[in-house]
Amino acid sequence: MRILITGGNGFIGSHFVGQAVKAGHEVSVLSRKAQPVFAHGQEFQHLPGGYEALAAHPEWLNGVETVVHAAWSSVPKTATADMQGDVQANVIGTLKLLEMLKDAPSLKHLVFLSSGGAVYGAAGGEQSIREDHPLEPISAYGVGKLSAEKYCQLFSNETGVQLTIVRPSNPFGMGQISVGVLGVVSTFLVNAIQGNPSKIFGDGSVVRDYLHVSDLARFLCKTVECRKSGIYNCGSGIGTSINEVVEAVESALGRPLVVNRIPARAFDPPHIVLDNSQAKLNFGWTPEIPLKDGISALARELSSHAD
Amino acid sequence: MRILITGGNGFIGSHFVGQAVKAGHEVSVLSRKAQPVFAHGQEFQHLPGGYEALAAHPEWLNGVETVVHAAWSSVPKTATADMQGDVQANVIGTLKLLEMLKDAPSLKHLVFLSSGGAVYGAAGGEQSIREDHPLEPISAYGVGKLSAEKYCQLFSNETGVQLTIVRPSNPFGMGQISVGVLGVVSTFLVNAIQGNPSKIFGDGSVVRDYLHVSDLARFLCKTVECRKSGIYNCGSGIGTSINEVVEAVESALGRPLVVNRIPARAFDPPHIVLDNSQAKLNFGWTPEIPLKDGISALARELSSHAD
Repeated sequence: MRILITGGNGFIGSHFVGQAVKAGHEVSVLSRKAQPVFAHGQEFQHLPGGYEALAAHPEWLNGVETVVHAAWSSVPKTATADMQGDVQANVIGTLKLLEMLKDAPSLKHLVFLSSGGAVYGAAGGEQSIREDHPLEPISAYGVGKLSAEKYCQLFSNETGVQLTIVRPSNPFGMGQISVGVLGVVSTFLVNAIQGNPSKIFGDGSVVRDYLHVSDLARFLCKTVECRKSGIYNCGSGIGTSINEVVEAVESALGRPLVVNRIPARAFDPPHIVLDNSQAKLNFGWTPEIPLKDGISALARELSSHAD
Repeated sequence: MRILITGGNGFIGSHFVGQAVKAGHEVSVLSRKAQPVFAHGQEFQHLPGGYEALAAHPEWLNGVETVVHAAWSSVPKTATADMQGDVQANVIGTLKLLEMLKDAPSLKHLVFLSSGGAVYGAAGGEQSIREDHPLEPISAYGVGKLSAEKYCQLFSNETGVQLTIVRPSNPFGMGQISVGVLGVVSTFLVNAIQGNPSKIFGDGSVVRDYLHVSDLARFLCKTVECRKSGIYNCGSGIGTSINEVVEAVESALGRPLVVNRIPARAFDPPHIVLDNSQAKLNFGWTPEIPLKDGISALARELSSHAD
């Protein structure tokens, strides 16, 4: 299948590209960057210049059946610091892409990478969150992702192109640091390896649902191959506190982590664990890499990389 | 009380300004226009130049306790035609305003005029819609209003400024045509008076909740005076089909309406009637002008105006 992905040079996107090419798909990566950042050892077509370049080269969409929209230039911290810039780059950016996709001759399916960690907001309570939970984002990042979901839905209604919205939990794995996304797992490991202290916002009780990026990329491959419309959480379904992550990192490295505790941030919901039963039921997918195993493997890879 | 309103030259905003000044409030209207458009016979301060002018004159916010954000440059048709422009003008516009309000020394309360007709989407079924109904807009206009609601909520969370979100149904009354908002009641009346045919999208079975703009303006005054946080529908609670509006207009004018029926539009939900019980309960408000009486009065005013 011919797939075009935006954000294919990013942390999640590049893992998807690696798996999709390996599975025999023909993958083009639309990127703001002049050169590919990640290869993961696989061959793909790099299309530099971002949305503007795509507008100038509508032929890049010829034969493309599926578009995976994974490009997003902000993280919660940067979106909060510049909300207007976030809307400009990411919400209007998404609208630019959708406008061009209207004329894509062979497009059948759009997959949008949203955020299970941000669109539900504080969510309240400790149950795992289903896809029909009210959407009450408490961060500008979450509002932007929510808006983009809604515009993708309008696009699908209007064009008949099938839409799959994926709401991932907190992915972790190789490549996260290099692109500036501040996942705590990689951050703690890299800090420890480099001998730097790690920051913890609040008392470390904040609970998240950590998912190995390979498991997430495998789910994205399934959504592309099964072409099933809908909104799907993609998480481990397991809640882990920051303090438990610290313990797992210490155990993987065999030494204590130096931690600076600083005040909690308003845009961090206290407890986000995703109910992943729809993803399991509809795609026969299940997460395969437990957090501890993922952290141990990542510790080995990062340590050898640091040598 | 000192109130600053954006969009105070618009259809709804100008009726609010008239009533608020009459009730003894000191009202400033921030406007993109050089001159005030509506006066409704009341004295108010006109601040020309829009958000850019406010940025250059932060002193305009001195002493302002309440901001009513009613400015919105699009309607469903124009937002659908130019989604990027809609986000630019209205969502980023809202963010520009909020950014300036962060420094407003005496601000206690923000009232945001959203849309009860657009944020809920197709809504499904024929029950009246409560405020906790899922938000599934089927128009770009609805997505924009929803995004702006969410950014106002973030602003309120961050600053502690109280937030009231008002979701009005379909307002009608004097002044609607002049500003280009296509309310069917005014459009049908003006067309009939001028001897022109009226367009009906679909079979005329689309049901809406029509509210006289004076009733809506009175509710906005109550929200300003009571300063109660929350999200409130503001509608008549009564469903009326387009065909019933046609009958009421014919009865008010004493002659048949010439109608051209054209295909339904994808962004028009089939049935929107708002549950107004929270507005009644929390503000002791109730709509006072029935649709038929409002149409008759408007027919008289428009006819005398046309003489």
